[in-house]
Amino acid sequence: MPPTPALQSPTYEDVRAAAARIDGHAHRTPVLRSRLLNEQLGADVVFKCENFQRMGAFKFRGAFNALSRFSPEQRRAGVITYSSGNHAQAISLSAQLLDIPATIVMPHDAPASKVAATKGYGGQVVTYDRYSEDREEIGRALAEEHGYTLIPPYDHPHVIAGQGTAAKELFEEVGELDALFTPMGGGGLLSGSSLSAGALSPDCRLYGVEPEAGDDGRQSFRTGSIVHIDTPKTIADGAQTQHVGTWTFDIFRHRATDILTATDAQLIDAMRDFATFMKIVTEPTGCLGLAAVRERADQLRGQRVGVVISGGNIDLDRFAALVAS
Amino acid sequence: MPPTPALQSPTYEDVRAAAARIDGHAHRTPVLRSRLLNEQLGADVVFKCENFQRMGAFKFRGAFNALSRFSPEQRRAGVITYSSGNHAQAISLSAQLLDIPATIVMPHDAPASKVAATKGYGGQVVTYDRYSEDREEIGRALAEEHGYTLIPPYDHPHVIAGQGTAAKELFEEVGELDALFTPMGGGGLLSGSSLSAGALSPDCRLYGVEPEAGDDGRQSFRTGSIVHIDTPKTIADGAQTQHVGTWTFDIFRHRATDILTATDAQLIDAMRDFATFMKIVTEPTGCLGLAAVRERADQLRGQRVGVVISGGNIDLDRFAALVAS
Repeated sequence: MPPTPALQSPTYEDVRAAAARIDGHAHRTPVLRSRLLNEQLGADVVFKCENFQRMGAFKFRGAFNALSRFSPEQRRAGVITYSSGNHAQAISLSAQLLDIPATIVMPHDAPASKVAATKGYGGQVVTYDRYSEDREEIGRALAEEHGYTLIPPYDHPHVIAGQGTAAKELFEEVGELDALFTPMGGGGLLSGSSLSAGALSPDCRLYGVEPEAGDDGRQSFRTGSIVHIDTPKTIADGAQTQHVGTWTFDIFRHRATDILTATDAQLIDAMRDFATFMKIVTEPTGCLGLAAVRERADQLRGQRVGVVISGGNIDLDRFAALVAS
Repeated sequence: MPPTPALQSPTYEDVRAAAARIDGHAHRTPVLRSRLLNEQLGADVVFKCENFQRMGAFKFRGAFNALSRFSPEQRRAGVITYSSGNHAQAISLSAQLLDIPATIVMPHDAPASKVAATKGYGGQVVTYDRYSEDREEIGRALAEEHGYTLIPPYDHPHVIAGQGTAAKELFEEVGELDALFTPMGGGGLLSGSSLSAGALSPDCRLYGVEPEAGDDGRQSFRTGSIVHIDTPKTIADGAQTQHVGTWTFDIFRHRATDILTATDAQLIDAMRDFATFMKIVTEPTGCLGLAAVRERADQLRGQRVGVVISGGNIDLDRFAALVAS
């Protein structure tokens, strides 16, 4: 197998190229707004609804872009990743569409619905014990043994470029914004969005929002070096990352205005707002942006604000339990 | 006050004129589809999402169209209607936007949230005892006393023409269809949709779907005369009508292919499908179309099918209780 070309930090040109690659495969998701919610907030807030994306989250964009760039040799050998969440389904579905064998390393106690969804798209699931084994090591070992290409959940230039296409579509549809809020786990969505904002709305302030219980991104942003934490306890299961990525940090540390946080209670309030005013189902991680906007409505009065809803994959019983008062 | 011009049964030209009147006021709601749901159903099903319409239901279209046609004298005197549901909010909001005084006759035991929403849009609410008083009589008496114009919930040519704009938008966006399913209470949405189907997709089969507990529409369709029933017990509170309208019946009796029914259990299954596969919140009445499609998937295999989701106004606790397994 020839060596993979050296990776480079993505630019907006890479986001544009990713947009062309995913065109016709990813949904161009709708942008929604609620007049009643805007009256409450005193701002003009537009929501990019990636809960309507294929497999239910923005992760499809980055995964499909990364797999589209595989060489014929890489395609034959297959892809491997580790994820218990939306990236697992995104890789599995993208691999199915591109006819690439996919192996997904998931904890053996992952929710049955997520394992089933990942298998449903055709991926082969390898389980591990999250308390005694290291998923990254398992992934690397399998990759070496079988010649798989590893596409990690967020820290990869091609993944970042793909994630940037959501904000690109948003700016193309609504024009420039005063501020943009995105959920933040490992920083892939935030970094990709910052590339699109830089090109299409250069004066837009850019905020990543992470769970208050796991504010490693904010700590990293403010101290200037990547901070590692224990897996945070939060309902935002898509943002339970222990550290941001080196590729992602290198981008968002220069381009983000600030990193904010939201509590689980604030996420539930935002989730209720989405269901009540916009009639949409969101997962807790998808509510990080609105939760931050609600807390800072005073500072956003009269402004044009964008919010990326990252996904809507949540067990219905869980959703029902969270939104019931 | 000069007499109101005599009303005439609406045609597709009236739907077109209504579309021009509501343009810029009503949302052009998104059309969504789910690949996973389509794989399950074996058909290509597109959903016109009127749960994303202003005030949360298609009713805004007909109300705004009807009020837009008021003469200056009618506008000054005001509008009156009777409704405990979406039409109340639709008239209240439309009247607010057009600066017309609105009076809404609601049962004194109507859900507090619906009364609050109606008042929130500026309408004056008059309550009555639904067990001892007749809302239509109260409406007519107040209309005569104050010179109000009465716009009933469904049985009015201008309301019907407005409701037809949803299907018009659907056909314009997706082209011709093999079959279209709409929820059915008094027949306003079905009748209006039939005008658009006749012009834009003349070979499309057209089905109204009502709650099984209140199949007066089907009885009326099959016997050829309007059948009256007691208020049916069903979770589809937007379709608890006791009889269809004379204007609506005169249209759909000639244009509908058939009237179908769905049980409450089938509505809950459809509501769960909407939340799971499409990440949207719907009210039970809004699920009538999908419930019928699910039951008849065998007969729709390989076909292009449209479904109108009529609305998404439901108390969150109620929604949570219905979708939880």
